[in-house]
Amino acid sequence: MVVEVKKAVFDSLSLDNGATLSPVEVAYETYGRLNDTRSNAILVLHAFSGDAHAAGISPETGKPGWWDSMIGPGKAFDTDKYFVICSNVLGGCRGTTGPGSINPVTGKRYAMTFPGITITDMVRLQKMLIDSLGIRKLLSVSGGSMGGMQALQWAVAYPDSIESAIPIATTACHSAQQIAFNEVGRQAILFDPDWNEGNYYDGKPPARGLAVARMVGHITYMSDESMRQKFGRRLRSKDKFGFDFSVDFEVESYLRYRGGEFVNRFDANSYLYITKAMDYFDLANGGQSLAAVFESTRARFLVISFTSDWLYPSYQSVEIVRALRSRNVDVAYCELPSNYGHDAFLVEVGEQTELIRGFLARTFRERAAA
Amino acid sequence: MVVEVKKAVFDSLSLDNGATLSPVEVAYETYGRLNDTRSNAILVLHAFSGDAHAAGISPETGKPGWWDSMIGPGKAFDTDKYFVICSNVLGGCRGTTGPGSINPVTGKRYAMTFPGITITDMVRLQKMLIDSLGIRKLLSVSGGSMGGMQALQWAVAYPDSIESAIPIATTACHSAQQIAFNEVGRQAILFDPDWNEGNYYDGKPPARGLAVARMVGHITYMSDESMRQKFGRRLRSKDKFGFDFSVDFEVESYLRYRGGEFVNRFDANSYLYITKAMDYFDLANGGQSLAAVFESTRARFLVISFTSDWLYPSYQSVEIVRALRSRNVDVAYCELPSNYGHDAFLVEVGEQTELIRGFLARTFRERAAA
Repeated sequence: MVVEVKKAVFDSLSLDNGATLSPVEVAYETYGRLNDTRSNAILVLHAFSGDAHAAGISPETGKPGWWDSMIGPGKAFDTDKYFVICSNVLGGCRGTTGPGSINPVTGKRYAMTFPGITITDMVRLQKMLIDSLGIRKLLSVSGGSMGGMQALQWAVAYPDSIESAIPIATTACHSAQQIAFNEVGRQAILFDPDWNEGNYYDGKPPARGLAVARMVGHITYMSDESMRQKFGRRLRSKDKFGFDFSVDFEVESYLRYRGGEFVNRFDANSYLYITKAMDYFDLANGGQSLAAVFESTRARFLVISFTSDWLYPSYQSVEIVRALRSRNVDVAYCELPSNYGHDAFLVEVGEQTELIRGFLARTFRERAAA
Repeated sequence: MVVEVKKAVFDSLSLDNGATLSPVEVAYETYGRLNDTRSNAILVLHAFSGDAHAAGISPETGKPGWWDSMIGPGKAFDTDKYFVICSNVLGGCRGTTGPGSINPVTGKRYAMTFPGITITDMVRLQKMLIDSLGIRKLLSVSGGSMGGMQALQWAVAYPDSIESAIPIATTACHSAQQIAFNEVGRQAILFDPDWNEGNYYDGKPPARGLAVARMVGHITYMSDESMRQKFGRRLRSKDKFGFDFSVDFEVESYLRYRGGEFVNRFDANSYLYITKAMDYFDLANGGQSLAAVFESTRARFLVISFTSDWLYPSYQSVEIVRALRSRNVDVAYCELPSNYGHDAFLVEVGEQTELIRGFLARTFRERAAA
């Protein structure tokens, strides 16, 4: 099914850092149909490098969406029953206003004059989109990784606007190690001479820095075990001692391919801004306890993590669950067995589908009964 | 105690890839005294970025050696009893012949004309050094990380030349994940325009690429827990939303410092060659079982790993231990509790000292009795 990307434009958006963006565009897609009572809408939130194209086939690229295995008729997010929305995040480079957009004041790209943004800002813009669609209360908000952070932020910032939340493979707050991996990626970009202080839009983008950043990312998305299964120590060349710093091992070839491919679809400045937003994300705002943050949360939760995910380890999900339970929030937690590491939230379709389908059905039923 | 670095020169060294290096220099240091029967010599093997300066104070830098806490009078490697030797590896940049050395044939630096080298080649050169010192049989060979690979290679290549081996936080063979992390570092260097196909010795070195490579390395040397304890989410600046892509978090500052500092003491081409040697290391040579490789091993083993080391996880040590046991080799294995990740082999002095001191004393005693 071909799905067209839509566009919403808002006059202005106030940001956490005090700045105002004006105007702001949001790219989004929808799947399924909003019912008459507008009670079946689900907002799906993408991860760091995702976009609004969550399901169906893009007429532009011919490719399925990033969660196509989970969204559609009869799938986990069943579009025969639910109306699913996915928008590209603020600061992104896939149709929503970001550093690559034109600043109407100057007529030039924002580049590094783009204001610092936060996960809270991203969610504030999503709320404006949902309001503009005439939806008073979402049946659910769900996403993995950075999408899970947004789901958590929705529950805290707009407790009356969601019935439920499904944060997957995520955290309430980046650890030093998570910040460190992002920082290496940023340094690789900042060090690339083609980055040129962010002003590369009329010339060559910092392709080498961005590729290295993406390679680091891909290692953290997989697991030791999944890399062994996928690549092992298989050599590309037969000559054991013939190494020449081109490509010897299959895993090297894979990383270079994924790094190079990323450059064609992602903006380096968006990489900088969005990773910073993730690093600064802290649901408890430093001082407060995480439990206190959930004081006014009324949503029901389904929290999912994966055994081999070492980038967003299960203990970070357990911290969220513990905080929610301490405030008597209705929360189900499942740590699913998987060898796929952090990528599991994209590829482990079977068990996630069972969990999410049941959770949404119950939420929808009880909402109708209320 | 000030320790001078010594130099040995050999006419030629045959390499696994068929090439011959001629001549070859080796930088090494020694601590303690060789006894009359030459039965108290221990070869200590450094990790990837280490050098011959394992203990004492360098007159050049004023700094203690990389394992100074473990080597000295009364320490784990007790220099009141033992004669300890440490040499810089082949391909290195700290006094032993490597890509930064002058090729006598051309009168120019080898740079990328340096032949591909292996862990086996490094050990072959160490054997020449030990022979030249008149030592027929080493009491022990020991090292962590890449040093542990060399210790294993000694046991397999020269079974009659060592009484014992102490491989620490190491593996018999790099996994796909370990290759992947090295590959990202190499790509960061190869992508730096200052690398210039390896010909940078008369100009600017590829400082930015090498720094990024080192940053990735440092993340893998620490653990999630040790990074949390050392940095947490502490900010460098007070202004929460004032991020400007300079330095926000303490962990970023640390990584940039360590990356920048590394450039002053390490050669980028050595980085390329030595990481490749590690990636190609495979004690079982692909086909053979690891156990079969230890068929003629007569040395006694002490194998040590650390609970939080995710770069060289304990299961890799367990594989070595299992293979040794299957060939009735005398092997003690200890997985030590530590939060320090892979760095533990450098900083967890207490328990390592107890283990190594007892192991060496017994080995020395039984050798004397034999």
